[in-house]
Amino acid sequence: MKESTFQPKSEVHELSDLAYKADLADYSPVRGCMVIKPYGYAIWENIQKDLDRRIKDCGYPNAYFPLLIPESFMRKEAEHVEGFAPECAVVTHAGGEKLEEPLVIRPTSETIIYHMFGKWIRSWRDLPYGINQWANVVRWEMRTRLFLRTTEFLWQEGHTAHATRESADGDARRMLETYRQFFEEILALAPVVGEKSENERFAGAERTYSLEVLLRDGKALQSGTSHYLGQGFAKAFEITYQSKQNELEFAHLNSWGVSTRLIGALILGHQDELGLILPPAVAPYQVVIIPIYKTEEEKSLVLASCAELKAELKEAGLRIFVDDDDQSSPGAKFNKWELKGAPLRIHLGPRDVKNDCAELARRDTRVKTRDIPRAALSAKVQEELSSIQAALLERNRSWVRENTFTVESLEELSEKLSTGNGGFARVHWAGGKEEEKELQTKTKASIRVCPFDEADEEGVCIMTGKPSKRRVWVAKAY
Amino acid sequence: MKESTFQPKSEVHELSDLAYKADLADYSPVRGCMVIKPYGYAIWENIQKDLDRRIKDCGYPNAYFPLLIPESFMRKEAEHVEGFAPECAVVTHAGGEKLEEPLVIRPTSETIIYHMFGKWIRSWRDLPYGINQWANVVRWEMRTRLFLRTTEFLWQEGHTAHATRESADGDARRMLETYRQFFEEILALAPVVGEKSENERFAGAERTYSLEVLLRDGKALQSGTSHYLGQGFAKAFEITYQSKQNELEFAHLNSWGVSTRLIGALILGHQDELGLILPPAVAPYQVVIIPIYKTEEEKSLVLASCAELKAELKEAGLRIFVDDDDQSSPGAKFNKWELKGAPLRIHLGPRDVKNDCAELARRDTRVKTRDIPRAALSAKVQEELSSIQAALLERNRSWVRENTFTVESLEELSEKLSTGNGGFARVHWAGGKEEEKELQTKTKASIRVCPFDEADEEGVCIMTGKPSKRRVWVAKAY
Repeated sequence: MKESTFQPKSEVHELSDLAYKADLADYSPVRGCMVIKPYGYAIWENIQKDLDRRIKDCGYPNAYFPLLIPESFMRKEAEHVEGFAPECAVVTHAGGEKLEEPLVIRPTSETIIYHMFGKWIRSWRDLPYGINQWANVVRWEMRTRLFLRTTEFLWQEGHTAHATRESADGDARRMLETYRQFFEEILALAPVVGEKSENERFAGAERTYSLEVLLRDGKALQSGTSHYLGQGFAKAFEITYQSKQNELEFAHLNSWGVSTRLIGALILGHQDELGLILPPAVAPYQVVIIPIYKTEEEKSLVLASCAELKAELKEAGLRIFVDDDDQSSPGAKFNKWELKGAPLRIHLGPRDVKNDCAELARRDTRVKTRDIPRAALSAKVQEELSSIQAALLERNRSWVRENTFTVESLEELSEKLSTGNGGFARVHWAGGKEEEKELQTKTKASIRVCPFDEADEEGVCIMTGKPSKRRVWVAKAY
Repeated sequence: MKESTFQPKSEVHELSDLAYKADLADYSPVRGCMVIKPYGYAIWENIQKDLDRRIKDCGYPNAYFPLLIPESFMRKEAEHVEGFAPECAVVTHAGGEKLEEPLVIRPTSETIIYHMFGKWIRSWRDLPYGINQWANVVRWEMRTRLFLRTTEFLWQEGHTAHATRESADGDARRMLETYRQFFEEILALAPVVGEKSENERFAGAERTYSLEVLLRDGKALQSGTSHYLGQGFAKAFEITYQSKQNELEFAHLNSWGVSTRLIGALILGHQDELGLILPPAVAPYQVVIIPIYKTEEEKSLVLASCAELKAELKEAGLRIFVDDDDQSSPGAKFNKWELKGAPLRIHLGPRDVKNDCAELARRDTRVKTRDIPRAALSAKVQEELSSIQAALLERNRSWVRENTFTVESLEELSEKLSTGNGGFARVHWAGGKEEEKELQTKTKASIRVCPFDEADEEGVCIMTGKPSKRRVWVAKAY
């Protein structure tokens, strides 16, 4: 794999390794960029389809803005350019000529979208106003890793404008809650949700909210964010509206997004030693049917039965694949689909056809049930799929519960995070940006989030010794 | 609109003008790039949803490949680089440093995708192999025009590999036929399909097939293409397979695509002096309900009835919008939705609510039907939508029929194309690339296509006077 710039790391199932072996992605000859293969892309399509509906139900339709952004736009918001300029890919030549002004490939689209908002928004009647965009973005990352951090990635970015701080901040939280429901119901992941610390805030945001997923390797993954941007961008891009009182006001802006990193969260969040375990709601194939036969006569009998069964399950709205590859044995196929994480398998041999039944194998529990009557199979399959979806969520929820602990000192924190499963440490904190950097240096961990559901509690900051009123959650992170 | 680099041209409804007024797109501050607004993007989503299913039914799943392509890749196929190099946007700097090798933003993805095909394809058992990609591409065009020609556009590009010329060429035609059916059934456009002349061939292709749509301004629009690429790219990117006879062979490749240009085809293909007429299959809203009231009492009565009706029609699977904007009159709304091309409108006033009926207005025929009983309305709406979809296709089919004529000389050709509605001229042709350029210079028209259904016929080339065996179709084009 000489062309790769990905840096594998051996833990549980190492992400790049599993993503590659399960045929979700491949390394590309372009620095830090991956190829998303059909099996991986189908997961993304299932994510898109569901989340897109949820975003539209929130009142935000899709639109599309240019990939290329004039460099001067990036500079209009001071914090934003400081955060993103080092990661930008820059087009200096086009159509055989040097450009008068270089164009950057969008690392995120605040600047170009807010330029348009400035043209479109006129009155309080236009607010709240918002759009969503499904797009590719490029950030020149030094250390890349399949799905988690790639130079180019796919995402959706929502951008909304509001009349007041309250309306904007409330909507930023509403979109975070929309993500949270999507994570639990579709991805079967139980994220910890709350506000980010100062050091982890989006470049240009007043408040950043985040969903942090605890992976099987004990690290946390920032898997989605929602930002209340205040009026900074509105001032930079002159997004003003005529208020009810007929005064010109600057709008309050939000942005929020999730990316193909979610596939990384799935891979590292749902796996065991056999490989991936995909939640049925996003699995490319919810059921893989594996024909078992020896003779040519058995083959035609079994394949005909598989085709019937496939048609029946498809009719029920399920995603089905019959693995009729002649070149590998049933055993090899069991292993393959265990690695690839198909939630359910149906094993169908001549005896099953004769007895009008089939064997069902669950990926998560590895329980096999023989001799399920064909008449009951479709209902049983749907019941098992619901059960797997629920079980995976519960498994992740338990994982968070079991690996979240309360510590009272820096020493204890370092020790806890370096042993066992890793996980989240609840610590008292009253430090600022500098102390956050110190924490990172000393423990290789960082403040992931201050969860909404942490109660107020008096305590002492583990770094500064100052009084603290609430605990934050610290973890090692990608 | 000082920032625009689009060049309007006044004809029928000028494209950019109508696209802008109907709120499908806006001009962006980035040279030649547009912003696709929600009303325009919703059309693209409807296109995607239907076409994506058709492509998958052909056996080709989606995947995603990098946006950025090493410059050296572009040079591996001689004709390809000659065709595309002048249009490339080039990234020379990234992450604050000069790159060792410049990267081009994909103008099309043959090179990067075929590099991966070379890694993936091993045996005749792997063939045919193919994928589709929905992506953005960038071509540095000098003369841009909303939807028809923009520096960045959205498209799908399919890429397939085959064992033989026959298999590949047959599949290129199958994908063209897939597009043709999609054009007729969904876009309500009757394209002329056939093979492109040498001069109009894709850079690197052996044969290019095309769908040419005749627009209301009498010009033809190349609206989709399918290419048989031969073995050139396979040789450049070492895509070999072990044949059944155990010999190493180069694969035969195809590519095919349609883009957001289809929205341009819709705008210029379906319109009248009032504005756009959208086919129901792609219209963001198939039915727009317009409440009519004067008093507050009427308002609440009518709006409640509109909400009920909306729920009922949504239940029937239709896309519905209630235009309850308080700031404009019913008359202004009629005009607005005529301009924006909503296929059907329902006008609902207090008298209608009282009599339990409604008025239906068809956009294409402008026929209004009063007093349709509410109980019959849903069925009537669905019947009218089918009727509009069919009528628009028939209207475009007639347009092609009425504006296609047979000419026997260059003089006659020039005259015909410059008068009346423009349209297609069937001419005998035996020229080569040079004569095609001469034709363009003399008539401002070009050979669009040699239709599959043109019969063999002996004749004399209008340019060279040489014997010709078949007619080609010439038109002015975008």
